[in-house]
Amino acid sequence: MAEKYSRESIKDLAFALLTKGGLPDDKAEVVAELLTRTDELGVTTHGLSMVPYYLPELASGKMTTSGTHEVVSDRGATMVWDGNYLPGHWLMTQALDLCMERARTHGVACLAMRRSHHIGCLSTLTRIAAEAGFVCMINTSDPSGAWVAPFGGTTPVLTPNPWAVGYPAADHPVLIDTCASITTVSKVREYVNSKRQFDHPWMLDGAGNPTTDPNVVNQTPKGSILPVGGSDHGHKGFAMALTVEMLSQALSGHGRSESVTRWGGNVFLQVMDPEAFAGLDAFTTEVDALNTACRSNPPAPGVRHVRIPGDRAAEMLTRSRTEGISLPDEVWTRVTEAAGVLGVRLPRPISG
Amino acid sequence: MAEKYSRESIKDLAFALLTKGGLPDDKAEVVAELLTRTDELGVTTHGLSMVPYYLPELASGKMTTSGTHEVVSDRGATMVWDGNYLPGHWLMTQALDLCMERARTHGVACLAMRRSHHIGCLSTLTRIAAEAGFVCMINTSDPSGAWVAPFGGTTPVLTPNPWAVGYPAADHPVLIDTCASITTVSKVREYVNSKRQFDHPWMLDGAGNPTTDPNVVNQTPKGSILPVGGSDHGHKGFAMALTVEMLSQALSGHGRSESVTRWGGNVFLQVMDPEAFAGLDAFTTEVDALNTACRSNPPAPGVRHVRIPGDRAAEMLTRSRTEGISLPDEVWTRVTEAAGVLGVRLPRPISG
Repeated sequence: MAEKYSRESIKDLAFALLTKGGLPDDKAEVVAELLTRTDELGVTTHGLSMVPYYLPELASGKMTTSGTHEVVSDRGATMVWDGNYLPGHWLMTQALDLCMERARTHGVACLAMRRSHHIGCLSTLTRIAAEAGFVCMINTSDPSGAWVAPFGGTTPVLTPNPWAVGYPAADHPVLIDTCASITTVSKVREYVNSKRQFDHPWMLDGAGNPTTDPNVVNQTPKGSILPVGGSDHGHKGFAMALTVEMLSQALSGHGRSESVTRWGGNVFLQVMDPEAFAGLDAFTTEVDALNTACRSNPPAPGVRHVRIPGDRAAEMLTRSRTEGISLPDEVWTRVTEAAGVLGVRLPRPISG
Repeated sequence: MAEKYSRESIKDLAFALLTKGGLPDDKAEVVAELLTRTDELGVTTHGLSMVPYYLPELASGKMTTSGTHEVVSDRGATMVWDGNYLPGHWLMTQALDLCMERARTHGVACLAMRRSHHIGCLSTLTRIAAEAGFVCMINTSDPSGAWVAPFGGTTPVLTPNPWAVGYPAADHPVLIDTCASITTVSKVREYVNSKRQFDHPWMLDGAGNPTTDPNVVNQTPKGSILPVGGSDHGHKGFAMALTVEMLSQALSGHGRSESVTRWGGNVFLQVMDPEAFAGLDAFTTEVDALNTACRSNPPAPGVRHVRIPGDRAAEMLTRSRTEGISLPDEVWTRVTEAAGVLGVRLPRPISG
């Protein structure tokens, strides 16, 4: 993890792997750029790390490489797209551009998208709009996934259901990027692989008993990840999950009623222009008043200081741009293997 | 609690108290109707129960009784209103009507409102739009309130920050009505008054230690309610709280930067028309597929069956309309006192 790489070398590597894997240059350019930005923000689970997962999807044709999305409906401030399983980063870049343009006109723009492929790190996307002065909200679910049981139930039905909100502030954007379950599928896999238990009962076994054991997802009957609030007040996380699936599946007209099995991402994207409301100045005045009250809050025992979501990303971005990007060994192991298969040369770390 | 009252007698009582308290008939009619519906839905903390809290606000002029809201901005799909501390139920009824009309045209309508007075039970409001076939989301905060500390901090800064989502389904609307903290201010007061402790550490004392003791809110330094997720994963509830305050305060241009001390409600209301997206039929097909998968889910130990938010409200409404409305003794105690002061006669229960 110690070695650092330039953003160019990470992006070039992602681009080379994706194009050798069958993605055309124009789409690979966009995907590689967003994956690199994700690593720069320190979200190393969703940057270059994703490429070895995308390559088999490209090889099997499950990630579409040609054509474009279909416009299912367009009413100006609301849109529905069918993403045709094209690369999610590429689709979302266009969706963001269009929604920002529409929000400038209408004040708000909402786009529900069905059948995108994986859209990657949500705060990499919301940050694009927040940097441009917009409020940006993304809800996403995968109707083929079932990892979370409804509160009070035992059989997994829901995805972790990520949701993100990005908005401007005086210093750097606030970047909320969270989900409706206590932990994520990738975190569960990480704990299974490293034979660790969670510190708290974040899982439910197949009989509905809370447990710290991530292995319950590989047992029969299959266990699940608890919704936010856990066994204590998980009805709140369940409420969030229902909201995310309603926005991303019911509004886009594609979801669990179709018993989907293909890896994909349904998306609900909303962009708002504070200038159409009370103005960007009034907006950032209120955001900064609240952020200041939080950051200057006397910390609880064991806490150094209160952070606003996005503070760590801003620090990581500065560090990445001055010192270079470092990635976990686990990422390099899988990337090295993929590069070997495709005959792509690995970059050299920054000397120093 | 055993005695039942007709909806007419509850509504007449609320109307009589409010008009004697100084609210003009037209506004009192709307407020009394929504408070009665709230009691019919079984949310007895927010129905007739609120009238004794509104009366001193009317008497002191802090709840405005005449005039109307100011339109701060109107871009068709987005609006900002200044509510001038008029009764929240009355303002929200007009806001909902307008947003439903605008959503029919634009697909989506967002209204940020500053300086409303208390808007009451959120699901009573979202239900109006959901029954008419719309998706309805309400976020509300009171910039004069401070009950929840930022995650990692110790000093209360945020309100519990309620948020609600209502949307159509084949049987009855889904009515999510929750908040960004584990419990509410009224629940804390109830536990303080009845000298009870919470079963789990839902509170934080003034030094930042989790506790089951609700009395920490009356100590110095003042304790707080933990955000959803508690000390385990309360960064998720904190993220929700920041989102609710951003939507309701920053977009409306009025919030904590002004050191507000007057009881009020800032609101962010969003209405969407599924017909402008993939259609209402496709919408309810997906909602029902998910609801069925949840309701038929094998229940966890100690659970009778999984419920969808809104199921209990639907049952309570049926019961209230057939058997009458019953209210807790605590509500009758305060209402009886207020009725005595204003010379309003109490209704008789339904004989049975």
